[in-house]
Amino acid sequence: MIQLLKMNAILENIKNNLSNYHILNSNFRERYNEIEENIKSAVVISIDSEFSGLSFASKFKNSLFHRGPDRYEVIKKNVDNFLIIEFGLTTFHFNRDENKYEAHMYNFFIFPRPIASVDTKFACQASSLQFLSKCSFDFNKFVYEGIPYLNEEQERVLRSELVEGKLFQQVERNVAFDDEKIIVRKVVAGEREELISINGNYLERDILDYFLGFTKIFRLLVSSKKPIVGHNLFIDLMILYNQFYEPLPDNYSVFKKKINTLFPKIYDTKYISYELRKVLKKEDAWESNMLLDLYNYFAEGRGRESNLYRPDVKLWKQSVDQLDPDILVHEAGWDSYICGYCFLQLGHYFASATYGLDAYRRPLTSTEHINSVAKFANKVNVVRASIGYVNFAGDDPPSNRPQILLVKVKGNCSISSLEVAEMLAKYCSVDTKPLNNKSVLVAVSNFSCARQILRDFLKHEKYRVSLYHPFRDSTIIRGVLWSGLLISGGLCIGAFIQKLLK
Amino acid sequence: MIQLLKMNAILENIKNNLSNYHILNSNFRERYNEIEENIKSAVVISIDSEFSGLSFASKFKNSLFHRGPDRYEVIKKNVDNFLIIEFGLTTFHFNRDENKYEAHMYNFFIFPRPIASVDTKFACQASSLQFLSKCSFDFNKFVYEGIPYLNEEQERVLRSELVEGKLFQQVERNVAFDDEKIIVRKVVAGEREELISINGNYLERDILDYFLGFTKIFRLLVSSKKPIVGHNLFIDLMILYNQFYEPLPDNYSVFKKKINTLFPKIYDTKYISYELRKVLKKEDAWESNMLLDLYNYFAEGRGRESNLYRPDVKLWKQSVDQLDPDILVHEAGWDSYICGYCFLQLGHYFASATYGLDAYRRPLTSTEHINSVAKFANKVNVVRASIGYVNFAGDDPPSNRPQILLVKVKGNCSISSLEVAEMLAKYCSVDTKPLNNKSVLVAVSNFSCARQILRDFLKHEKYRVSLYHPFRDSTIIRGVLWSGLLISGGLCIGAFIQKLLK
Repeated sequence: MIQLLKMNAILENIKNNLSNYHILNSNFRERYNEIEENIKSAVVISIDSEFSGLSFASKFKNSLFHRGPDRYEVIKKNVDNFLIIEFGLTTFHFNRDENKYEAHMYNFFIFPRPIASVDTKFACQASSLQFLSKCSFDFNKFVYEGIPYLNEEQERVLRSELVEGKLFQQVERNVAFDDEKIIVRKVVAGEREELISINGNYLERDILDYFLGFTKIFRLLVSSKKPIVGHNLFIDLMILYNQFYEPLPDNYSVFKKKINTLFPKIYDTKYISYELRKVLKKEDAWESNMLLDLYNYFAEGRGRESNLYRPDVKLWKQSVDQLDPDILVHEAGWDSYICGYCFLQLGHYFASATYGLDAYRRPLTSTEHINSVAKFANKVNVVRASIGYVNFAGDDPPSNRPQILLVKVKGNCSISSLEVAEMLAKYCSVDTKPLNNKSVLVAVSNFSCARQILRDFLKHEKYRVSLYHPFRDSTIIRGVLWSGLLISGGLCIGAFIQKLLK
Repeated sequence: MIQLLKMNAILENIKNNLSNYHILNSNFRERYNEIEENIKSAVVISIDSEFSGLSFASKFKNSLFHRGPDRYEVIKKNVDNFLIIEFGLTTFHFNRDENKYEAHMYNFFIFPRPIASVDTKFACQASSLQFLSKCSFDFNKFVYEGIPYLNEEQERVLRSELVEGKLFQQVERNVAFDDEKIIVRKVVAGEREELISINGNYLERDILDYFLGFTKIFRLLVSSKKPIVGHNLFIDLMILYNQFYEPLPDNYSVFKKKINTLFPKIYDTKYISYELRKVLKKEDAWESNMLLDLYNYFAEGRGRESNLYRPDVKLWKQSVDQLDPDILVHEAGWDSYICGYCFLQLGHYFASATYGLDAYRRPLTSTEHINSVAKFANKVNVVRASIGYVNFAGDDPPSNRPQILLVKVKGNCSISSLEVAEMLAKYCSVDTKPLNNKSVLVAVSNFSCARQILRDFLKHEKYRVSLYHPFRDSTIIRGVLWSGLLISGGLCIGAFIQKLLK
């Protein structure tokens, strides 16, 4: 047993040397000031999260029919109880003399440590945990060493329980003795009041501070008002809001406004990379904008124009001296770093286009890099939906998908969405939903595919496919309109009769 | 990095030598036959579980008002999404020549490994995970090495998806390549049918068998019809049923009947130890019947009469050669072992009483040990309730608590349950619930305390405390009775009028 413990200690040492960018409950307080300073002095901050679950089950299907409110509602139903268990944060600092961004990367483990009546019940998804295990996620670090946090409601509850002294009624259950050097001693009547009058409410204050934990980082991000960068971060923002701030509002617009107040400058590298592809020459275009692929695209120096005075982006040496990126893939810290890296390269690309010849003559400033993508601010990608992105600073854009198609079965047969989905699967990605037992609506992912379907079914003997016109084709809408006419008609007649009887 | 991997390997080796009673996904198939044989040849099998959560929040409060159906409903609401993540099982085998029980102890790690559309979403409770971490629970073993399982519905789903070939439509997501030596190769059209005709559906069968995993152990326990022993196992039975069999029925009686069919001989050492205390001399009585305390009580040879030809209970040597029990406390395997140990000692105690002089002359048989506690079969302890135990083989017993008290406030004041709970807290453990705004019901844990309260409040100026008589005191019940009278009265009058009009 002693041998085992020794080996464990040695192993831990090796791991610790490798991973001083891992921020745990044990080193969080010691590292807090450094992190705070880096957040405050950063020109941009990138983030990434790993979740305890995310339902890939059929009920949570991204649909081409979805507008912003639909997608928000579907995710809200499914993420309410999932947690961010690992949070990556990288701060970037510009050195103009060296035309270089220096990055400080942090990987936080986060666990809802229970205290008093705050005892979080949360959901896990088997497939998500299995995915994390394939990325070598350390679940023991999560539970044993995760940093606590409190959302605003939990903070209120704990604060009032501390004031009422409830915490100390069940002290053994409530205080994690080994977490902190708190000496718990029973005091005789009166002594407590005396101690408090001498020390103020230091103990209460320290306990609150301890359990606020990662929430303090969240609040630093909010108060800093720095540009926040993520990759495809719509769900991240929802869970972040729910976990460290307050329950998600029912109303989508309220959510957008509140996020915009918390984080007024959000950038999504997924969204911006789509914008980049629009202006790139065909041979320069990226093949995939998955985060790692995009990072490799830029790391290999592709996209010719971006090479002029391209700023260097480097991890701060001491934080990752011996790191092998292979073992870091999908660790939130590393993913946040490469996301920020991509953002700066995208920024430089668009800045080169904006500043023209100037960009050939001198290194640009970090303000110039960031200003050049300012038009993309607060636009966050949505996957497989009717709209291409969510706009946190205003109205969402119109749909960028083809018009919905209507498939009708001829004759006396009925038709099912599944049947239509299977029939059209060979064309491209489609989603279907029934309109009635003879018609199915089809949302098609791209225009050429929609045209192809319309052409191929032009003289089909069993099905008729056409563009869908809601007011003409929907029996429900037609029904509503008719019943509206009838009701108002009825009201007129009723009024007429009443008049006659007067 | 290589150094780190080497250290990891060495550490794993040490751990493996220490813990061949740990049954993981990697050794489950290899050990299955041995476990099956031990289950089939056991005279008794003891079990214990560790859960991913159990709400200690106020909503899930054990109340002295609870009868069986109330408690079942409250737990059902709260456990539905919790999982057994570690399951302890010990089989006991009697050697009459040596008057000795030999125990084979197993500690299973269980994880809902996702496959095809089976992707379990489950709940965790922060305080439960923290409790497990204090017992050195290895969360990585749970996720990385947990054995899969399927309940009956999941098995049906997976079976039909295998038949339809759905599994192989998204093979990368669905098959955990590294879990098993399955070679996945894309076959050309027609080849699949050919392969199947040669090999039968071996692959489908093997995959199903692999993902059934721990469910096969559950089914062995069911089919063996052996006596199953646990300590305070009401919640264990509910989660076991829900996780490996089918969703908990809404109806409490249905649940009891189904459990009784699955496990017709259940013993609860918590319940039996209360029965033991009733017959022990005061100086021989145990001070606590928490599992570990009870184990120490028997291991120290206490309870004089049980010492005659007391059977030896030993763990099978090879399974635990170098074990330090201190590190095992609250590991499900160890807890299942000490639970079975206590059961056999309880059995021997009652057998000595039953067989009188015979027990002084010869070692008893294991049948005699178990028959002597047969009267306690299927009675399972319920904590802090109106009834002392649940009877799975018939009607639950009447309440063993004092009659409910009624606290009424005199004059024009109103009264709250909290106020009454706080006022009576100094007497003993009580639960309160409001009857109306001037009366509160009080369930009191013991008789002497109830008498004391009645005495002390005999001439109280503000409150009147009396025994509660539902039919006399409840306005709702009185209301229902009166409205019943009025309605039937009204019906009579109506009928009378109808008669007059005929």
